[in-house]
Amino acid sequence: MVGDEGLPSTFTADASSPGVSLVRRIANHFRSGIVEGQYRVGARLPTVRHVAAQVGTTAETVAAAYRILSEQGLVRARTGIGTVVLPQRGSDSVGGLATPAPGRVPIVPPLATPSFHETYRRLLHLDRDTASGGFASYTPALDLYPREAGRLLRSALRRDGARLFEMGAAEGDPALRGAVAERLAVGGAAVSSKRVMVTNGGQEGLALVFRALAGPGDTVVVESPTYLGALEALATAGVRVVGVPVGPDGPDPDELASVATRAGARVFYTMPSFQNPTGYTMSLARRRRLLAVARRHDLVIVEDAAASDLSWGAPPPPSLLVLDREQRVVHVGTFSKSLFSGIRLGFVAAPEALVEPLLRLKYVTNVHVSLLLQRLGLAFASDRRMRRHLAWVRPAYRARRDAMIEALARELNGAASWTQPEGGFSLWLELPRGLDAADLFRLAVERGVSFVPGAVFFPEAVQHHALRLCFSGMAPAQITRGVGLLGEALRELSGRGAPARGRRRA
Amino acid sequence: MVGDEGLPSTFTADASSPGVSLVRRIANHFRSGIVEGQYRVGARLPTVRHVAAQVGTTAETVAAAYRILSEQGLVRARTGIGTVVLPQRGSDSVGGLATPAPGRVPIVPPLATPSFHETYRRLLHLDRDTASGGFASYTPALDLYPREAGRLLRSALRRDGARLFEMGAAEGDPALRGAVAERLAVGGAAVSSKRVMVTNGGQEGLALVFRALAGPGDTVVVESPTYLGALEALATAGVRVVGVPVGPDGPDPDELASVATRAGARVFYTMPSFQNPTGYTMSLARRRRLLAVARRHDLVIVEDAAASDLSWGAPPPPSLLVLDREQRVVHVGTFSKSLFSGIRLGFVAAPEALVEPLLRLKYVTNVHVSLLLQRLGLAFASDRRMRRHLAWVRPAYRARRDAMIEALARELNGAASWTQPEGGFSLWLELPRGLDAADLFRLAVERGVSFVPGAVFFPEAVQHHALRLCFSGMAPAQITRGVGLLGEALRELSGRGAPARGRRRA
Repeated sequence: MVGDEGLPSTFTADASSPGVSLVRRIANHFRSGIVEGQYRVGARLPTVRHVAAQVGTTAETVAAAYRILSEQGLVRARTGIGTVVLPQRGSDSVGGLATPAPGRVPIVPPLATPSFHETYRRLLHLDRDTASGGFASYTPALDLYPREAGRLLRSALRRDGARLFEMGAAEGDPALRGAVAERLAVGGAAVSSKRVMVTNGGQEGLALVFRALAGPGDTVVVESPTYLGALEALATAGVRVVGVPVGPDGPDPDELASVATRAGARVFYTMPSFQNPTGYTMSLARRRRLLAVARRHDLVIVEDAAASDLSWGAPPPPSLLVLDREQRVVHVGTFSKSLFSGIRLGFVAAPEALVEPLLRLKYVTNVHVSLLLQRLGLAFASDRRMRRHLAWVRPAYRARRDAMIEALARELNGAASWTQPEGGFSLWLELPRGLDAADLFRLAVERGVSFVPGAVFFPEAVQHHALRLCFSGMAPAQITRGVGLLGEALRELSGRGAPARGRRRA
Repeated sequence: MVGDEGLPSTFTADASSPGVSLVRRIANHFRSGIVEGQYRVGARLPTVRHVAAQVGTTAETVAAAYRILSEQGLVRARTGIGTVVLPQRGSDSVGGLATPAPGRVPIVPPLATPSFHETYRRLLHLDRDTASGGFASYTPALDLYPREAGRLLRSALRRDGARLFEMGAAEGDPALRGAVAERLAVGGAAVSSKRVMVTNGGQEGLALVFRALAGPGDTVVVESPTYLGALEALATAGVRVVGVPVGPDGPDPDELASVATRAGARVFYTMPSFQNPTGYTMSLARRRRLLAVARRHDLVIVEDAAASDLSWGAPPPPSLLVLDREQRVVHVGTFSKSLFSGIRLGFVAAPEALVEPLLRLKYVTNVHVSLLLQRLGLAFASDRRMRRHLAWVRPAYRARRDAMIEALARELNGAASWTQPEGGFSLWLELPRGLDAADLFRLAVERGVSFVPGAVFFPEAVQHHALRLCFSGMAPAQITRGVGLLGEALRELSGRGAPARGRRRA
């Protein structure tokens, strides 16, 4: 039997960490141990009773964690023997950091080489998959999802029955498109529903829009840093990207103009409100100047509005879609951030000339979004219900952001600087130049806290001393604890660290 | 008020056409009239009572049809005035045959020009959208969907609750991947679940596989004729296609070899069982020869198994995936044909070397399939439940196919030839050379019966004298009636027709 001396102290049950979270943290601990080879194939995990005593929880809690591992195909309970580690799943192994299994397909597919981003994508994924409670995942909290979702879906099923299983239209259900157009109208945008297309989440919206607007050999200007999923979508479409630096008031419009001109780019991708990863929000004046530059240089603007509902302080200025007077803005929105990740429902509000190309791409991509999901989205798409939900989650996310910023001020004061976002799920932290966030990452993960090193968010001119911290996934007390561990890691990196296992604050 | 003299006689209610279908047919009739300009903006539709008397049904039935039109934004009921036709929706108008609205996006997107296929895609879509009961849609019947779907989903919601709203993994839920692998194993394929990826339907599986295997400038060999969605996916990916003719025993392997060699193609797309559109099924010997040729010429085979569960007579031979000994086959399957269209759930069983590139593309395309849909799929993925469902629908589809073949023999005997498929949803009909199926299409649509002219299914060397007839959507009596109308249309086309409104048989 492999020992359990490695159980991190963060497992200690306390009032602020509910049972479910502890189950996940235990599962995640052993999962990491299995993936990293600490528990080898055929090895037995410690007994449930033993781990329970060690962690200070019930046997049921540990058993639940083991069941998760079993469902994930990592272990199997064998009568009279115990919980045994199963063979790992080759290239499919968790985290994607294992060497891919030797390929036997006789041609080398154009996308066979995993990219740098890909590695981190899988890392993020690990975090999401196991809900490890790190600072890596830019996703809504599982404890803040709309409780009425199940009820709404059940009642839709009862009412509409078989109709929800029919073939739908590529552009989406007329009722949902209308509701989206109405909500956009509340925000000030006069967009007819015929310009609205329903997508399987915001990522699909971006991917379709990029494919419709640019192909291999074309260049798109993006903010630097920017959303990783956009960079990946552009890369897989064979599109070249160039960056324009984003500051507290967004990118500088004149710099955008010169970058676009030099690169011969006709498309600019931006996230004006609560930018991912920085949390920056453009002022109204900056938005107007940006549109003026776009007009002068004949640019199409792809506006990513994924975070625009996630306002924890001052609401953001009107969207570029609202300010646009000439259908120069393609607006991509999502329900996956404001409601819950798993719904995979988003939309594009497109210029008329793009509607048909987008529909064609949507059709070949996957025909249409399941009517079931669209029906669920419809239940939430009304401005009233969405407002109510957002009013409920707002104080909770605000408290999480505040907890992170307060903890950073205590733990990292003078050792780093960070943004203070009025919305979204993340802030952006810069280490002193010369320190590498990837080094900090390794030290932090050893302590059980995760984040995403900033380098992956840059299209070019990569900076290595920055990182993204998401505050959305954990309760304030956990955030405080995690930032404490991060502070430790940073002190070790800076060469003035406390011993690795020490805890500075109770 | 516009008159209603155009109500086709197929509206006549009879015992074999259930209420729902009549509602749809009435809605479709007026929808077509609106789209084609017969009812102009501001015009009133005939009163419910009037249409009911004309058709010989209840006022409720007609009112339900008008409600469908209203939900589709085509008409609005106005007190004291009646049901009024609303302005149409520009480029978004039904059927897509209207001229697109003038574009104002300042650059011409690479996909702005609707393709030839596109026009027919929208035509098909119209058919699907309104369930007009034509022979155009290759979709399962709405009256043969699994009744337990709603109950299964409700119970999954109760049991798993919030877990279904979490972020999922790009590759899909482990349980569903395992269930798919198990079902493939029942069919004889030893595929570990790590090679299974869950997709939003079979179309998404094909689109991702094509993008992973080929890019702009590459050539893919397809059967001629073949599935329209595959041609569209290849076209939007910038991939060139060349065709190899498909006969009753599939394509000739030697011809495939020479076509692939000449074109420098490394990928072959095929549908070995109940091919869409022809209904042809390859023998076991042919499958083996095909694999031998693929080995010799180093081809990857993309096997489309969309119809392989849809067996109405002799079951098809083992899939190419089963016979493959060197991971040369990429197998694309779907739940959307065997269960219902709206679910949008499918899978790819890929060679190991393709797993990672496919996951990357899946991630950038839309991150993952909604866990809600995956949970519903899981409920049906077990071999036992799927067998039970298929056992239930098999006699019904067999009766529809038989009704179509019998009616064709009566109505078109000597005037055309057609395939006799052992499965799938369609048969392939060849007119005498010199006749154009597009001409027949116009005459048939006038009589209220639809199909897809065969030209769209050809990658090149287009044949104009063939067409696809789907028998899946209607009850046998409706099929018999529809084929009667088709016979009329063909007689008119051949210059020996009966008068347009005449009915030959009662």
